[in-house]
Amino acid sequence: MSSAGTALPSSHVDGARLWRRIIDMARYGARPDGGVDRPALSAAEAQARARLVAWGREIGLTPFTDQGANLFLRLEGEDRSLPPVVTGSHIDSQPTGGRFDGVYGVIAGLEAVEAIIASGRRAKRPIEIVAWTNEEGSRFAPGMTGSQLYVGQKTMADVAAILDADGIRMTDAIDAILASDTDIALRDFGRPVAAYVEAHIEQGPDLEAAGIPVGIVTGIQGTRRYRIFVTGEAAHAGTARRSERRDALMSAVRIINALDEKAAIHPEFKLTVGLFEVTPNAPSVVPSNVMFSLDIRHNENALVDAMDRDLRRTAARQAGPCEVEIRQIAHAPSLDFSPTIRDIIREAADACGTASMDIHSAAGHDARQMHHVCPSGMIFIPCRGGISHNPAERAEPEHALAGAEVLCDTIWRLANADQP
Amino acid sequence: MSSAGTALPSSHVDGARLWRRIIDMARYGARPDGGVDRPALSAAEAQARARLVAWGREIGLTPFTDQGANLFLRLEGEDRSLPPVVTGSHIDSQPTGGRFDGVYGVIAGLEAVEAIIASGRRAKRPIEIVAWTNEEGSRFAPGMTGSQLYVGQKTMADVAAILDADGIRMTDAIDAILASDTDIALRDFGRPVAAYVEAHIEQGPDLEAAGIPVGIVTGIQGTRRYRIFVTGEAAHAGTARRSERRDALMSAVRIINALDEKAAIHPEFKLTVGLFEVTPNAPSVVPSNVMFSLDIRHNENALVDAMDRDLRRTAARQAGPCEVEIRQIAHAPSLDFSPTIRDIIREAADACGTASMDIHSAAGHDARQMHHVCPSGMIFIPCRGGISHNPAERAEPEHALAGAEVLCDTIWRLANADQP
Repeated sequence: MSSAGTALPSSHVDGARLWRRIIDMARYGARPDGGVDRPALSAAEAQARARLVAWGREIGLTPFTDQGANLFLRLEGEDRSLPPVVTGSHIDSQPTGGRFDGVYGVIAGLEAVEAIIASGRRAKRPIEIVAWTNEEGSRFAPGMTGSQLYVGQKTMADVAAILDADGIRMTDAIDAILASDTDIALRDFGRPVAAYVEAHIEQGPDLEAAGIPVGIVTGIQGTRRYRIFVTGEAAHAGTARRSERRDALMSAVRIINALDEKAAIHPEFKLTVGLFEVTPNAPSVVPSNVMFSLDIRHNENALVDAMDRDLRRTAARQAGPCEVEIRQIAHAPSLDFSPTIRDIIREAADACGTASMDIHSAAGHDARQMHHVCPSGMIFIPCRGGISHNPAERAEPEHALAGAEVLCDTIWRLANADQP
Repeated sequence: MSSAGTALPSSHVDGARLWRRIIDMARYGARPDGGVDRPALSAAEAQARARLVAWGREIGLTPFTDQGANLFLRLEGEDRSLPPVVTGSHIDSQPTGGRFDGVYGVIAGLEAVEAIIASGRRAKRPIEIVAWTNEEGSRFAPGMTGSQLYVGQKTMADVAAILDADGIRMTDAIDAILASDTDIALRDFGRPVAAYVEAHIEQGPDLEAAGIPVGIVTGIQGTRRYRIFVTGEAAHAGTARRSERRDALMSAVRIINALDEKAAIHPEFKLTVGLFEVTPNAPSVVPSNVMFSLDIRHNENALVDAMDRDLRRTAARQAGPCEVEIRQIAHAPSLDFSPTIRDIIREAADACGTASMDIHSAAGHDARQMHHVCPSGMIFIPCRGGISHNPAERAEPEHALAGAEVLCDTIWRLANADQP
């Protein structure tokens, strides 16, 4: 560690400022129920993004963006030729989202960098705070677009076909954001990164139950996501006999019911049908078409893969007189984060006097993509009742502070290490 | 029969004119696939209604309306103080509707009256052609509004709370139509009717299979309609464990699947979930709410009533951790039409030299309501493949003509009878 002194930069983390900024971000896309509805690349997200740029500039950070509208706020290092340490998360939300999912990691990253600046010291490597585009995937499905573009798992050509529910092209929504970035330099995807650390609320109940403020994330559970299209034929609800019907809704219901019964065998298996759309969706008409989403997750890749095979068999068996098309739109196997990064987070927590524990992530995060290109890790803080993707999502100010302190010390260590 | 001569007015029915008008009506709300999307009280329906008024005026009929925007076209009788014979149907359609459902009965009624006028004779009683408001119930649920208001099964106060999917009040939509009826006199609901006869496509396959052009409808099958509200809690698709979830969609799926399995025991039982709406309807969020429609029908009232009781038990058993609210929005027991009217239709068919057969109606019609206030009946014509509520709905010109001839002779007989 070339320039680290004895007092930790994390002692400069300001819990009140951190909390104020988290609450301030919730104004953009605020829901009447206290939650947040801030779709990716929406006007509300553009305002939140501009707010971040302004906060970064106030403390001397330089903003950058790329063709995916990812936002980076850069603090120069002693050696600006070295790849940066990157920290951050995302600022888009689910339609019924809360105030912490994503935003916490970005604002904690900003706070960590502000604390390092306030300490009067300069790290060897540059440090960048990132807000990745479209992590949630609610408006433009699937999510993780920005980090996938950055690491090369997707190209802009892959993104070009994605539309939102109103038929707006994702690339047009990105271009609209970039058009307003008149004073933000554009960089290429895939620039080398020394290490990536993402802070986030747990979105599960384990840290709260254990009474531990900081989780060192060991890995991310595997997931596959699908869109399933059932095609039958519209008919009159009063006259079409059962034997004559090709009822797309009833076929979909049988498929979902059978899959859920299979998933129930493993208590930790998560199977979700969050999106379900019926055509023509009229009370007196037998549905001709149903489209639904399917999201399956488990820590063990083998179980997710087995359900994938089951899905095809179940769809064929339960479709009845309808046709079923299964499109897998995302597949991310379970992964383990870098042991080196996990050790550094643990050392940072110890140095901050903060209790920590290992924890597995059931949710996907942009760190999944970064894991493929650099040593990566995550820091979790507790989330009340494990409730997330819900306006009632809630974190405690003291946990937010503890997480930001550990994040600050972690990136300080990484930014001064010869080889993270 | 005071003024009936030997040659039948039905000999003046013009099949080409009848068919041209049916096809002409399909222009209003035409779908690119050849079907019709003409919601009740929409601009498209208002145009079709104005077209009807114009056709009526061309042959000397007087239009009337009422507070429900039902449209009547009146031909005076020798004794204008007598209650009229009424014939007609509706001109609204399902969103994926065809060209014949409803429209056939109205245009056949117009053709029957035009033939009577062309015969140079005048009936004892007045004859009115009616187009009832909102038979389908797709835009404003439930349907049959106009005829229910007319017979007093509903009041305008009942209708006031009904909104369409865009939040437009049904009463406002009615007022908009009435506001443009500057030269159409307004009458009260519930004026006495001597008899009611409605012509309609069968919406089932039986006449076509039998090769018979005219069906004498014996009665209408019983139906109950519901809206079912399932309330759970939104949660993150990746982190919320099965044991923690209150997944409204999975509860709805289990309830529907269980009900459909019970319905399958009786091949003639029709159970339809045509409408299914999910909140927040995002792929990565466990649904907090589902609202779905349920439509159950069978000729035997006892079976429909038994399913009603089963529904409540099944909902309680399959709801899991969610709450379920069941609202019955319509209940119409099976009914038998007047034997007198059925006999007169049979005599008319015989007089026209048209083969006829008895047939039961699986679909509901406005005749259901009129049956409560006057002797009522229905005439069916075949419908290709039994397909209805579908853009592919199709009737044959020769069947349309045969039905209009029998309708003409039927209302001529009724309009001249002392006591229908």
